[in-house]
Amino acid sequence: MTNFKDRVRELVTEKASVLCIGLDAALPRQRALNVVPEAYFVDADDNEGRLNFSLNIMSQTALFAVAIKVNEQYMRGLTAIQHRRLTEFAHQHKLVAIYDSKLGDIRDSVESALFHYHEWGYDGITFNPLAGNLKEVVQIARKFEPPIGILVLTLMSNPEAEKYMRHAVVDGKPMFMVVAEEVRECEADGCIVAATGHVTEEDIKAIRRVVGSDRILLVPGVGTQKGNPEKVLRAVGRNTLIVIARDVIYSDNPGNRALEYSRSLRPLAQL
Amino acid sequence: MTNFKDRVRELVTEKASVLCIGLDAALPRQRALNVVPEAYFVDADDNEGRLNFSLNIMSQTALFAVAIKVNEQYMRGLTAIQHRRLTEFAHQHKLVAIYDSKLGDIRDSVESALFHYHEWGYDGITFNPLAGNLKEVVQIARKFEPPIGILVLTLMSNPEAEKYMRHAVVDGKPMFMVVAEEVRECEADGCIVAATGHVTEEDIKAIRRVVGSDRILLVPGVGTQKGNPEKVLRAVGRNTLIVIARDVIYSDNPGNRALEYSRSLRPLAQL
Repeated sequence: MTNFKDRVRELVTEKASVLCIGLDAALPRQRALNVVPEAYFVDADDNEGRLNFSLNIMSQTALFAVAIKVNEQYMRGLTAIQHRRLTEFAHQHKLVAIYDSKLGDIRDSVESALFHYHEWGYDGITFNPLAGNLKEVVQIARKFEPPIGILVLTLMSNPEAEKYMRHAVVDGKPMFMVVAEEVRECEADGCIVAATGHVTEEDIKAIRRVVGSDRILLVPGVGTQKGNPEKVLRAVGRNTLIVIARDVIYSDNPGNRALEYSRSLRPLAQL
Repeated sequence: MTNFKDRVRELVTEKASVLCIGLDAALPRQRALNVVPEAYFVDADDNEGRLNFSLNIMSQTALFAVAIKVNEQYMRGLTAIQHRRLTEFAHQHKLVAIYDSKLGDIRDSVESALFHYHEWGYDGITFNPLAGNLKEVVQIARKFEPPIGILVLTLMSNPEAEKYMRHAVVDGKPMFMVVAEEVRECEADGCIVAATGHVTEEDIKAIRRVVGSDRILLVPGVGTQKGNPEKVLRAVGRNTLIVIARDVIYSDNPGNRALEYSRSLRPLAQL
């Protein structure tokens, strides 16, 4: 079977898009704005409602997107069967399914988590590198068929992320650069690098330089989080996925919004 | 309502135990050893089997334990209703329910995760500090009624954890000490500090010194992971929970094993 990186590349070329739809399916009672419409919960429980909303978003956007990112913090409580419905639907629509779990744990627990992600049908996951065991995790992820792609949190968007990711220093280098080196050396599939807040064009270029052109950069923060698309377009290089979540999924016309993003980001698909 | 730290203290005094049972409920097809017995899956699906196993373990050990730690990497796929059955059962048996999720995310996603943990009935969660936003997370967790306890990964047991937790330096201090300072300053409920591998008695004492005697130290690694109980007994101080997982839950007689651990760790309940 095709590995994660190759599958992403194939779809980027085929669809001429680098768009990854972020499925942040919030329940109506959970907050005031940006929630799944009430209509999805008529005669459906929390799980069915969030699942059907997600399937509907995929139907509308799949022509213009190459991946979905399922945010665990919003999709908590779905069963294995429901996750499988979600990933099978994604695959039928030629979308790579990324589970945004920010996994970070000791070996036995990582093995258990990957066992479940694999049964649920996800192609790739997000990983928190704090426990230092990326090499081991990549090796475990490779044993599955197909191998599970590992995308590593490298530089996050929130202002406080600088505290450790930038200001913690290993051998004179900021932590995010050491994480990028670890991604290259351990042959992980790529990095998650925000495109907003304290993250500069130079930061993104430096990370790309370290990991090389063949790794995936997964870049959130361009939509609602107010990332600067020009900065991103200049810095990320080829093999990039741009995540747009609420700007697409909670818009009046998700298909049109996805098309607009896909077009404005098309130069990245043609690098 | 009582906050997390006070509730733990009450139960430690009442039960004269510092034992926290780690519910690492692995499916039989997931690995060769240390799995939930097949009998639990006769006429029951993966979720019901793992849930019933967990309830049964609680029934047998609740007299000798004060908390359960539900490891998300093993319990993936449970529904909200099933999590609620688990936490209600824990509360009926005077057990504090900790969800070992190692949450680490940006604000909106943290809010969403805590919304779900609260609905599921958990009293406390584990937190990964890499994103640097502990203060914000503690503030969000306090808005729930009852407030959700936040226990922060400070020093993990796996050998590679030294790479960042010890060797990344902020203002001349190892990262784990800076995390401990953050726990104190942000008024988080406590630290997770392993008792095995590279972690020394001096490390544990230094963390305790920084966070003060009123915070919880949640300490895995004493059972199967071969932590040294004497080292732990000398270093952790009062307000400590010792996590034992497979040594209890997969033993022939979980109740007896829990009783044995409870007795050998009793000096910590009497500090």
